[in-house]
Amino acid sequence: MAVYTEIPDDALETFIASYDIGALTSYKGIAEGVENTNYLVHTEEGSYILTLYEKRVRREDLPFFLTLMEHLAARGISCPVPVLDREGRVLRELMGRPAALVTFLEGLSVRRPRPEHCAALGAGLARLHLAGADFPMRRPNSLAVGDWPGLYESLAARADEVAPGLSGVIEAELDHLARHWPSGLAEGVIHADLFPDNVFFLGTRLSGIIDFYFACTDMLAYDIAICLNAWCFEPDNAFNVTKARALLRAYDRVRPLDAGDLEALPVLARGAALRFLLTRAHDWLNTPDGALVRPKDPLEYLRKLRFHQGVTGVGAYGLGAVA
Amino acid sequence: MAVYTEIPDDALETFIASYDIGALTSYKGIAEGVENTNYLVHTEEGSYILTLYEKRVRREDLPFFLTLMEHLAARGISCPVPVLDREGRVLRELMGRPAALVTFLEGLSVRRPRPEHCAALGAGLARLHLAGADFPMRRPNSLAVGDWPGLYESLAARADEVAPGLSGVIEAELDHLARHWPSGLAEGVIHADLFPDNVFFLGTRLSGIIDFYFACTDMLAYDIAICLNAWCFEPDNAFNVTKARALLRAYDRVRPLDAGDLEALPVLARGAALRFLLTRAHDWLNTPDGALVRPKDPLEYLRKLRFHQGVTGVGAYGLGAVA
Repeated sequence: MAVYTEIPDDALETFIASYDIGALTSYKGIAEGVENTNYLVHTEEGSYILTLYEKRVRREDLPFFLTLMEHLAARGISCPVPVLDREGRVLRELMGRPAALVTFLEGLSVRRPRPEHCAALGAGLARLHLAGADFPMRRPNSLAVGDWPGLYESLAARADEVAPGLSGVIEAELDHLARHWPSGLAEGVIHADLFPDNVFFLGTRLSGIIDFYFACTDMLAYDIAICLNAWCFEPDNAFNVTKARALLRAYDRVRPLDAGDLEALPVLARGAALRFLLTRAHDWLNTPDGALVRPKDPLEYLRKLRFHQGVTGVGAYGLGAVA
Repeated sequence: MAVYTEIPDDALETFIASYDIGALTSYKGIAEGVENTNYLVHTEEGSYILTLYEKRVRREDLPFFLTLMEHLAARGISCPVPVLDREGRVLRELMGRPAALVTFLEGLSVRRPRPEHCAALGAGLARLHLAGADFPMRRPNSLAVGDWPGLYESLAARADEVAPGLSGVIEAELDHLARHWPSGLAEGVIHADLFPDNVFFLGTRLSGIIDFYFACTDMLAYDIAICLNAWCFEPDNAFNVTKARALLRAYDRVRPLDAGDLEALPVLARGAALRFLLTRAHDWLNTPDGALVRPKDPLEYLRKLRFHQGVTGVGAYGLGAVA
C-alpha cells in the first residue's frame, strides 16, 4: 500500500478535462495495490480510480490488461471499465508514467470469506473464464511452471534464510512439477491473482473483480487452483473443505469442469502454492527494512504446499459428486 | 501520509451500522494526514471520512476539536461535520483507537495558490474567526510562544545538524520574541495549521476547511500570520506581496483588523515562522530513515523567519490602505 507518485491539483484538473466526465471535484491517494499508485477521483459525474503504473508493470503489457477489462465489462463481468478520453484513448501518460482511468466499483474485500463468498467467487470466476473465451489477445504467463526454476535460482543461495530446509523442499517440488505438470487442459484468459483483496462483495453478492495486472493466457483450472489456495485455508492454515466444495460446485454449475481439469487440480494447486511461495520468498529476501510495503509471509504458502503434497485426489477438495 | 491502522471489513460494517447513514458500500485508506489514519467511506447515503486518532493526538483534546467542527458547521463554515451515531455520540472507538466519522467535503488543495485563492482564504479565515466567537470551550495553544524555549531545548544540542549556525539564530529569535510578543489583542478560536493542504477549492471558491487538530484559543491575528507564511511565499522563497495584500484585504472586509492587530503582524509572523521552524527541525532530527512520513524541510521556515526579521511595518505585507 503506497502512493508512490503525487499529482498536483492543476496537473490532474487538466488531465481530467481531457475526458467527458465533468470537472474534477476531489481526489485522494489510496493505500491500495502494491505495484502502482492509485487515486480515488470524484468528478461532477461519478467516482473513478486513476492508476499510475510504476516501474514493476511492463508498459507493453498494459494494452492487454486494459483491453481485457473492456472486453469483460462488455460481456457483463463487474470489473473496472477503462474510460476513453475525448480522443478515444485508454492508455495515457501523467507525471511521466503510463496512466489509465477506470470506473470505481462499490464493494468490500472480505477478510474472512465464508462458504457463501467462496460459492459466489467460484461462479464469478467461471463467468470470467466464459467471458474471456473470445478475447483475441494473448499474453503468456510470465510466472508459469517453466519460469519457476529460474525464479528459484535467483534466491536459492538464501532460501534457507526464509526457513531452514526450504531449498530442499523447493528443489524436490520443482522436480515433481516438471514431471507431472498437466497439458492439454482448456486454456484461456485467467486472472492469476484472484485473492480476497481483489474481489468486492456487497453482502454475499460478488460486486466486482479488480486488479487484472497478472492476467494472462494459461490453463483455466490453474486459476481455480490459485483461488483454492487464496480462499479456502483458515488463518491457522487448516484447509476448509466446505469452502472448497462451495467454490468448485459453483464454478462447475456455470462452466462444467471435465475429468482432466478435476484430475489435475491437486498438482495445479501444488504449482500455485509454489508460485506464491517463490515470489513471496523473493520479496521477503529483497525488501529493504522500512520499505513502504511490508512483504507477505512466504511460509503461509509453504504450509499450503505441504497440504496439497498430501492430497491424492480431488476428493480432498470436497468433490466426488461433481463430475 | 499513511494508513497506520487497517480495519477489517466486518469490523467496519458493524461500526457503520451504528449510524443512520445506510449500509457501508466501500472504504479506502487514504494517504492524507500525518498524525492519524483516515478512510474515505462510501455508504448508501453518501461519502464520509473516518478518522482513527493515533497516538500523537491527545484523547482529552478530541471533544474540543469535534465540538468545534459542529459549532462552526452550524454557523455556515464549510468544514467536516461530525456525524452522530444512533446514540447521539460523536467520539467513538474502533480498532482500539478513538474514532470519529465526519462528512466528506469535495474540493482540491491548491499546490500553487494564486492571489484569488489567497483572497478567498482571507475571507474564509475571517468568517471562521467570527463563527468561533461564541464557542464556549477553550483549549490553550500547546505550541504557543511560552512553549518554544522548551521545544528548542529538546533539540538545541543537535540544531546545527539542521543548518550550521541555526542554534544562534533560534536563541536570538527566542530572546526577541520574549521581549516583543504582543498582548491584549483579540483572542478566540484559531485553526493554527491552515496550510494549503487543509483548504479545498472548487475553482477559486473556497469549498472547505479541514484538519482542526491544532485548533486552540489564541490571538486571531496569529492565525493570519501563520497563513501569510503558508500561502504568500513562492517556491523560491520570495515573499509575494500581491498575495499577502489579497489575503489581508479580504480578511479585513469580513472582520476588520484594528491598529493593534496590524502593528503586531510582523512579530506574529516571526513567531509563526519560528514555531514551524522548531517543530520541523524536531521532526527532521527525530524521523527514522525509511519512515512512512517524510519530514518537511525546516529551512523553508528559516528563510521565512529571515524575511520577517527584515520587515519594519505592515506595509511590507502590502497594506497601508487597509486600516
